[in-house]
Amino acid sequence: MSTSNSYQALMAFQRETEALAQVAGRLSWDQETVMPRGSAEQRGDEMAAMEHVLHARRVAPEVGDWLSGIDEASLDEVGRAQIRHIRHNFDRATKVPARLASALARTISRAQMVWVDASKAGDVSAFLPVLTEVLALRREEAQALAGDGPLYDALLDDYERGAKASELEAMFGALRPRLVALREAVLARPEPQGVSGQFEEDLQLRLSREVAQAFGYDLSRGRIDMAVHPFSSGSGDDVRITTRTDPKDPFNCVYSTIHEVGHASYEQNVDPAYRLTPLGSGVSMGVHESQSRIYENQLGRSRAFTSWLFARMRDRFGDFGIDDEDSFYAAVNRVKKGYIRTEADEIQYNLHIMLRFDLERALIAGDLHPGDLEAAWNDRFEADFGYPVDKPAHGVLQDVHWAAGLFGYFPTYSLGNVYAGCLNEAMRRAVPDVDDRLSRGDTGPAVVWLRENLQRHGGLYRPREVIERACGFPLSEAPLLSYLEAKFGDIYGL
Amino acid sequence: MSTSNSYQALMAFQRETEALAQVAGRLSWDQETVMPRGSAEQRGDEMAAMEHVLHARRVAPEVGDWLSGIDEASLDEVGRAQIRHIRHNFDRATKVPARLASALARTISRAQMVWVDASKAGDVSAFLPVLTEVLALRREEAQALAGDGPLYDALLDDYERGAKASELEAMFGALRPRLVALREAVLARPEPQGVSGQFEEDLQLRLSREVAQAFGYDLSRGRIDMAVHPFSSGSGDDVRITTRTDPKDPFNCVYSTIHEVGHASYEQNVDPAYRLTPLGSGVSMGVHESQSRIYENQLGRSRAFTSWLFARMRDRFGDFGIDDEDSFYAAVNRVKKGYIRTEADEIQYNLHIMLRFDLERALIAGDLHPGDLEAAWNDRFEADFGYPVDKPAHGVLQDVHWAAGLFGYFPTYSLGNVYAGCLNEAMRRAVPDVDDRLSRGDTGPAVVWLRENLQRHGGLYRPREVIERACGFPLSEAPLLSYLEAKFGDIYGL
Repeated sequence: MSTSNSYQALMAFQRETEALAQVAGRLSWDQETVMPRGSAEQRGDEMAAMEHVLHARRVAPEVGDWLSGIDEASLDEVGRAQIRHIRHNFDRATKVPARLASALARTISRAQMVWVDASKAGDVSAFLPVLTEVLALRREEAQALAGDGPLYDALLDDYERGAKASELEAMFGALRPRLVALREAVLARPEPQGVSGQFEEDLQLRLSREVAQAFGYDLSRGRIDMAVHPFSSGSGDDVRITTRTDPKDPFNCVYSTIHEVGHASYEQNVDPAYRLTPLGSGVSMGVHESQSRIYENQLGRSRAFTSWLFARMRDRFGDFGIDDEDSFYAAVNRVKKGYIRTEADEIQYNLHIMLRFDLERALIAGDLHPGDLEAAWNDRFEADFGYPVDKPAHGVLQDVHWAAGLFGYFPTYSLGNVYAGCLNEAMRRAVPDVDDRLSRGDTGPAVVWLRENLQRHGGLYRPREVIERACGFPLSEAPLLSYLEAKFGDIYGL
Repeated sequence: MSTSNSYQALMAFQRETEALAQVAGRLSWDQETVMPRGSAEQRGDEMAAMEHVLHARRVAPEVGDWLSGIDEASLDEVGRAQIRHIRHNFDRATKVPARLASALARTISRAQMVWVDASKAGDVSAFLPVLTEVLALRREEAQALAGDGPLYDALLDDYERGAKASELEAMFGALRPRLVALREAVLARPEPQGVSGQFEEDLQLRLSREVAQAFGYDLSRGRIDMAVHPFSSGSGDDVRITTRTDPKDPFNCVYSTIHEVGHASYEQNVDPAYRLTPLGSGVSMGVHESQSRIYENQLGRSRAFTSWLFARMRDRFGDFGIDDEDSFYAAVNRVKKGYIRTEADEIQYNLHIMLRFDLERALIAGDLHPGDLEAAWNDRFEADFGYPVDKPAHGVLQDVHWAAGLFGYFPTYSLGNVYAGCLNEAMRRAVPDVDDRLSRGDTGPAVVWLRENLQRHGGLYRPREVIERACGFPLSEAPLLSYLEAKFGDIYGL
């Protein structure tokens, strides 16, 4: 076959694979939102059947044949990017022996169940044996993938193509001491007042819907449902989000919605020409997180947007114990002692991530034995946060990631924050009236800039490349640091 | 491979196929209930990808190899039944050329869109060209399938394995004159009073939920949502139904719910050992319809159950213009002039079906040209119903079935009524206190009898066989006729 014929055949096959992957994703959405509770076992069989079909397509020998029949130099930029993704995914899938892939799937499934019970019971020792198994299998997988490179980079590459732990280490190394210092300064100041009263679920959901639309979420190609954990699901024309409510804390619902709208908007706004192709989704976990974070924090928790939100919340909920915009801004951005990553503020969040990044690299390198993990966690936590872990559920047992085999995933959260810091700086230079518009609940100029400069490209450019193209300057942790020091210096009068 | 190895390999493959078919079914459910309206085009690609995967598995050569490696005599009853289904489906799928299957899929998809517009506009001539195309393709398919038998039977076989048009003709021939006579007698009597007032949607939905549970629908393995057309979807542990409400007619919601609960209960109650195998679903359209009809009519519209329902509706809705149980029973079973099959009462419904059965047989046989269809419909309608069709939307354009290529499907509705008549007679002989319990809203003895004698067998027996085994007497239209004549004679004082 000619390059052109091979390319056409490969892309037709790939479109069908992407469509099937969307179906599998919708099945997960169904499971988390509407599935009857008695359907779990049958659903397991249905998901396994879909996974089997998808795996067979990922390692299908004809993909290899088509790829060897294609002369990349004869393709345009889009075609070369498609082939880059397809070749990478094919190589990755075929490098891992079927026996290992299946052992990983089984062990990870069991490990997550063990983790649920162990974290409820606060029993680290009950979790360690299966964690050790998962770790051994992921190390074996990393060896199959790494070639001559570092094992950890081979895992990181699944979530952030091309990223290197050494680069992240340098950025995080610059961030950590200044974040620790900022946390210390902030926690030494009086704590701002929080909201009080009860916030009716129905009103919270209506507000979250209004806020989602204010951030440009297209509800004709999406929907908002309730789920235990907020998430975004799907690509292209069917991108759904979930939220949750806490009767005492309306910010939980509002800001988890804005966060997921960031993820969902990225998926909705990719160029429709890339639909159901490898370019049709967000390019990496880190870039994805940059969108959820800039929507949630740099826009949603800004002084300007919170002044609009304050008025909307007073309309909806009446008096909730906060009388002016400045106090509301401080309440939204309150920094408190706490143990849980997912509940952390903008400063402490990154300290949580760096702790996990350093520990998981040590685990993968074999420098840290799982039996020593809890002590290492607790020591590092006290060093960075200034107070000791009180129980394992607040420490090493709080995240499902390692049970799920997700070594290499954590750093993409902070990398997303670093990306968001850069994007925020570039966007504010390019769009001078952002705050003026945000104070009227209008995110338009900001989200249009993000759509045009970043989101629409989908998988066309590499992760770091798409950030640097959008910003016009090299990636750096400096904008995030300046933003955090200025913002919290202002709120806390430092 | 040995029989045992071939059987194991075939069943493992088949279980995965059934699981994927459940996923495709869930995708349809999603489309009709929760899908964002802007997702339709992408969803089309997703459905097509699933259909492609399923089709490839239906005609997979290894299925043929495994089948030839199996000595059926060495299998038990369940194994032989599994192989009977698998062999039938494989033969059917491989007899139809891929070119024809794909032309049918495309034409049927287009025909349904044309039908929507034509039926809205009442324009028969706009529909005829595409109907002629669908008919020609289905005739070609029937020729590929029929062997030496009649073309129509080859199509009927898709919906009711083993049924013959000649047998249906004999049963329907016995039904028709007595139903026409009963309709005439009933319509000559004063019309019973209907309900009046407005019925709040939320209260209707709560009532329909209560009624669904009263009929044994297991909501831990199902759910009820709103959709334009009521339907039941899924098998085994995830069987969902939909309903709809009409503010002036609470019976629409209640009885469509009971009808779908009949379908859903059949699927939920199949022996769990057959889950995700060809035996794990209802065995035919006719037997399925027998369950929805006996739940809806012989149980749900009985004098006994309506006395309980009357009290529950008075509790929920207050006064709705009907003062006693007898009047309520008459209102639920009111016979009125009307044109629409889906809105017809128990008497006229079967007249609708026989009309379609005779016309579609003539179309398939080539004895009736599509250009003469409307006139034939209108003549027959007036002969059987006693009043003329007033417009095409009330006549030949009212059903989507022929546009969807479903020739051979209609008679299974009346066959289901005939089955329900037999099952009702047998069940009432076996369970003497059915009415006593129904009058307390307790369907337990009736639905347990149906579950144990029919539903749990799934696809183990052939359609007619499972009915006759449950009843203990040969299939006949006589029980349905006696039931209808007694019931409506009583209500209308004939």
